Amino acid sequence: MIAVIKSGATAQQIDGLQSWFHARGVKTHISEGDYQTIIGLVGDVSAIDTDLVEGLEIVESVKRISDPFKRANRKFHPKDTVIDVGGFKIGGGNFQIIAGPCSVESPEQILSVAKSVQKSGASLLRGGAFKPRTSPYNFQGLRAEGIDLLLEAKKVTQMPIVTEIMNAVHLPLFEEVDIIQVGARNMQNFELLKELGQCKKPILLKRGFANTLQELLMSAEYIMAEGNENVILCERGIRTFETYTRNTLDLSAVPVLRELTHLPVIIDPSHAIGVSRYVKPMALAAVACGADGLIIEVHNDPRNASCDGAQSLTPDEFDDLSADVDKIREALKV
Amino acid sequence: MIAVIKSGATAQQIDGLQSWFHARGVKTHISEGDYQTIIGLVGDVSAIDTDLVEGLEIVESVKRISDPFKRANRKFHPKDTVIDVGGFKIGGGNFQIIAGPCSVESPEQILSVAKSVQKSGASLLRGGAFKPRTSPYNFQGLRAEGIDLLLEAKKVTQMPIVTEIMNAVHLPLFEEVDIIQVGARNMQNFELLKELGQCKKPILLKRGFANTLQELLMSAEYIMAEGNENVILCERGIRTFETYTRNTLDLSAVPVLRELTHLPVIIDPSHAIGVSRYVKPMALAAVACGADGLIIEVHNDPRNASCDGAQSLTPDEFDDLSADVDKIREALKV
Amino acid sequence: MIAVIKSGATAQQIDGLQSWFHARGVKTHISEGDYQTIIGLVGDVSAIDTDLVEGLEIVESVKRISDPFKRANRKFHPKDTVIDVGGFKIGGGNFQIIAGPCSVESPEQILSVAKSVQKSGASLLRGGAFKPRTSPYNFQGLRAEGIDLLLEAKKVTQMPIVTEIMNAVHLPLFEEVDIIQVGARNMQNFELLKELGQCKKPILLKRGFANTLQELLMSAEYIMAEGNENVILCERGIRTFETYTRNTLDLSAVPVLRELTHLPVIIDPSHAIGVSRYVKPMALAAVACGADGLIIEVHNDPRNASCDGAQSLTPDEFDDLSADVDKIREALKV
Amino acid sequence: MIAVIKSGATAQQIDGLQSWFHARGVKTHISEGDYQTIIGLVGDVSAIDTDLVEGLEIVESVKRISDPFKRANRKFHPKDTVIDVGGFKIGGGNFQIIAGPCSVESPEQILSVAKSVQKSGASLLRGGAFKPRTSPYNFQGLRAEGIDLLLEAKKVTQMPIVTEIMNAVHLPLFEEVDIIQVGARNMQNFELLKELGQCKKPILLKRGFANTLQELLMSAEYIMAEGNENVILCERGIRTFETYTRNTLDLSAVPVLRELTHLPVIIDPSHAIGVSRYVKPMALAAVACGADGLIIEVHNDPRNASCDGAQSLTPDEFDDLSADVDKIREALKV
Repeated sequence: MIAVIKSGATAQQIDGLQSWFHARGVKTHISEGDYQTIIGLVGDVSAIDTDLVEGLEIVESVKRISDPFKRANRKFHPKDTVIDVGGFKIGGGNFQIIAGPCSVESPEQILSVAKSVQKSGASLLRGGAFKPRTSPYNFQGLRAEGIDLLLEAKKVTQMPIVTEIMNAVHLPLFEEVDIIQVGARNMQNFELLKELGQCKKPILLKRGFANTLQELLMSAEYIMAEGNENVILCERGIRTFETYTRNTLDLSAVPVLRELTHLPVIIDPSHAIGVSRYVKPMALAAVACGADGLIIEVHNDPRNASCDGAQSLTPDEFDDLSADVDKIREALKV
Repeated sequence: MIAVIKSGATAQQIDGLQSWFHARGVKTHISEGDYQTIIGLVGDVSAIDTDLVEGLEIVESVKRISDPFKRANRKFHPKDTVIDVGGFKIGGGNFQIIAGPCSVESPEQILSVAKSVQKSGASLLRGGAFKPRTSPYNFQGLRAEGIDLLLEAKKVTQMPIVTEIMNAVHLPLFEEVDIIQVGARNMQNFELLKELGQCKKPILLKRGFANTLQELLMSAEYIMAEGNENVILCERGIRTFETYTRNTLDLSAVPVLRELTHLPVIIDPSHAIGVSRYVKPMALAAVACGADGLIIEVHNDPRNASCDGAQSLTPDEFDDLSADVDKIREALKV
Repeated sequence: MIAVIKSGATAQQIDGLQSWFHARGVKTHISEGDYQTIIGLVGDVSAIDTDLVEGLEIVESVKRISDPFKRANRKFHPKDTVIDVGGFKIGGGNFQIIAGPCSVESPEQILSVAKSVQKSGASLLRGGAFKPRTSPYNFQGLRAEGIDLLLEAKKVTQMPIVTEIMNAVHLPLFEEVDIIQVGARNMQNFELLKELGQCKKPILLKRGFANTLQELLMSAEYIMAEGNENVILCERGIRTFETYTRNTLDLSAVPVLRELTHLPVIIDPSHAIGVSRYVKPMALAAVACGADGLIIEVHNDPRNASCDGAQSLTPDEFDDLSADVDKIREALKV
Repeated sequence: MIAVIKSGATAQQIDGLQSWFHARGVKTHISEGDYQTIIGLVGDVSAIDTDLVEGLEIVESVKRISDPFKRANRKFHPKDTVIDVGGFKIGGGNFQIIAGPCSVESPEQILSVAKSVQKSGASLLRGGAFKPRTSPYNFQGLRAEGIDLLLEAKKVTQMPIVTEIMNAVHLPLFEEVDIIQVGARNMQNFELLKELGQCKKPILLKRGFANTLQELLMSAEYIMAEGNENVILCERGIRTFETYTRNTLDLSAVPVLRELTHLPVIIDPSHAIGVSRYVKPMALAAVACGADGLIIEVHNDPRNASCDGAQSLTPDEFDDLSADVDKIREALKV
């Protein structure tokens, strides 16, 4: 961390500021330029509040020069994290497709979708039981019953299942769930993250639609700091001014996160784009830029889906997508 | 709601679509133009999923023409909601200043700040006990102890207190709290909103930093749909590309919300701007455009604050701000 | 276009509004719901100002239901536009890579880069002569001399050249240029667009960093309305809150524009991302989602480039990128 | 400027980098921490390209610690610039209201509006002759004839006039214009800025709807670097995800620019908000936070305006606004 000192500051004020830093356990290193004096901070600055330092009287600005995340940081853990879910590996060159309906609706629906996506190459099954909806008047999911239906589909197909948690008090219901998803709206629900850090299950952490990649990594850090290092990051579109698509899929997240962190990175094109006919091109793009996996919405009857039918693929469309994903992976030998 | 039909659709397909709508309990009204056929939906369309309709084969686009929020909607409740907190009224022409430190740190600190802001014109006391922080390594608040200290300050000063909840399981700790705050990051933590809807306390609902005003009203609707109509809306800055300020304070929220809803609207310039020397001008602007109140961070010793010192006013600065607020309200006779 | 009428409006007011529309040459079609009356406008509404209608006393809101662009609209021109530049075709299944340095710097530099990118598969040569720079104190390009150097490189390599225009008075200098580029900052410089509409050369129109896809198409429409239908659209990143990348590359522009317009769509990953090591993954993603071409910055000595060295590939890196582009196109048989 | 060096860099590489900087005329100052080596650059770094340095092999990141603008910078010119337009002063405590129609439409219209806004307290007259419109099919302004009509209104009322330029070749038409406006879409039309820098007239420079305040100041710098220091900055709303308002008025621009620059800052609430009934509250907010002036759209017959009728005030509404502006200025003694 570097603090740039205002030009009028006296030597005494600068001394005072240095003592203030020393009292917080960091060493200082001063550098006087013609126009500007700079204090460099050396040591563990992760707990120092940048905004606060910036508010100090003689400080003009503060720049953090090291990353505030540690456990998620590739610098300290150069090797890719590989997460094994029921024998299916994600990360470190291992690629998986998670597919299934937005919401679990009935035993027939979830089983039918599960079987068809499995046949087309999906290895994990997704399905929403607890559904975060903008309106209290929209369908809120089958909740506990939805999880039961997922577990039945798992029993039949042997596919590991992924479903979203909205409240830590529901954790007992997730005992047999293979990957617990944290939705975009809960990415900074720090109380929930802390509790998920205390279980050992893989967590699929979705980027909030207005969160930076650094904030995503800090939220992963919340989970990891409690002891659970099995975090899968997921980009699912960010909010911009563009209105033709629901959100703007930020695929640059893939190479950037690949560099910053050792955690696997997967892409959810369905929620990002919100229109089923744009899902396939964005899925292929995600594979081409190096994603470790995809999460895709598939519904046996999108036009009668309880939610998000607009973005769901039919089983046939998914089959077509999956075939082209394979072609790209084959071509790039990834 | 209006569905615009694709130009190639057959009469039979259009009939089929109309039946689909009728099955969902809404009446339809067809309008054929030279270039475009439109189906208008009449009746209660609040539970119809716009995205789903847009996904139907013959539908080109869908436009919602009525607001999806009901209880918060001024059309159905033209009269301003006035919320009375220990004798202090907010809304309907009643204006209050809520002031206090970002975090409660010690009995001396909170009492000292409380007394000074009260002397300068604040009627309610704020202070963070549970603190949402981007980093797990930053100070997380005194938690239960922080609430105890607020209650002590309340006993001495008689100021009603406002503090943030992050987890519904902490609700028992909030029994003596006068206004429960939902922070920006939890604005769409729907599970939390539902539980707050079941208590009767006033809820101070902060707009998420990337949420639209309509989403803010939908979150208020979550609370109100459960039976708690005492919601105070708070604009606290939105995320934009500008970097000189922490967020961009969207003051147009004041006149827009005034028109859309009967709920009181207050402004938090401290978090929006993030720099103490910009707080006063933005606070005055908020008053001039008609806000029902302000929430301002004040710290007895900003430079040693546990968090957000950069944006905290000193008691003297707050006194100056408060005096100018009075002048503007006097001048505009609001 | 649809105008939703406020609930209190009288029959007389509604009649008056209908007459107002008729006076502007459009027919009206009224639809009365239980809660809402709607006037549908039929005929050529492209010149009616949505904002103005919205401002009328009895109008609650206005929705445009047809696209405001005509010549660029795929609905009226279903067949892909193919642009032939010196024998190299772009669009309609034809793919080209445009490569070269950000700025033309010297005869040796531009010729050396041209030869190496040509060998690696680029068919067109780019190079900045007139450079838009945020700071007046940064290098502004070699200007007329830069164009001369591009023309010399063209003579040697036979590669058609692409370079940016910043001022219509420079048009005479562009006589031998094959594609004239309009930069992102000039996308809504309507005076420039009109003048380019009067020449017949292909125009490479870059999306402004904060412009919607509809605005991009409206700017293409400015050129086309003057008679020049040879417009190539280029996505080059939009401005968001994310800071790890210079801009956020919006690849969903590819499938969306493919649907909305018949014009070719190419991608500039270099400017979008701003970091050379992220250029290749984003270029491959662009190809996978169906772009008609790429424009890539390549410099023989990035570390001494006059501008944008940070995002320029070396010739070797470009060669590697180009080979993988071929693999993906081969795999997808596009 | 500070360059943070990657941890693996050798002493030789660091020496090489220092020489590279020295060759560009800046001195270096090295600071070695436990984890990080930093090179501080001393001297005139305004021409060094941050992105390029960031692209160098051993550089991890680069931070600019001084402002890239000089002539517009308050640090070097602490005294407020006051611009005198026909006896009306703007800046340094002097406040003016500029009012008038979006477009000049007819002699009667412009004169009628001019007289009424003058009576209500406006000192300068605005009116669009050259109109930047998103669609080529919308009204483009009366152009040269519009300027003639403005000049006639000036003759009758003695009000100085403000109108927008879109193309430097039109400059001869602006000889009698008092303030030349650069619209938001041309804020980074650097060719136009340079030419305006060579005339001596005051320039009203509007912030682009997706430009940072620093970019606004850099554009002012383009004008000032050519010798014209008479620049008035204008905030007119930025593009965000919110859709209830046309743009989001960023009033924090007022205190931030006040600190960064000596140039006057005025606010255009009409274009920012786009809805006439929200203009007054935002205008009052602008005054309360310290703006040096307002620019307000007023039309004698908004419902038949050629453009932007939705946001235009009637003369009576403007009179009401102006009276409340006075009250706030009186109350705050600004």
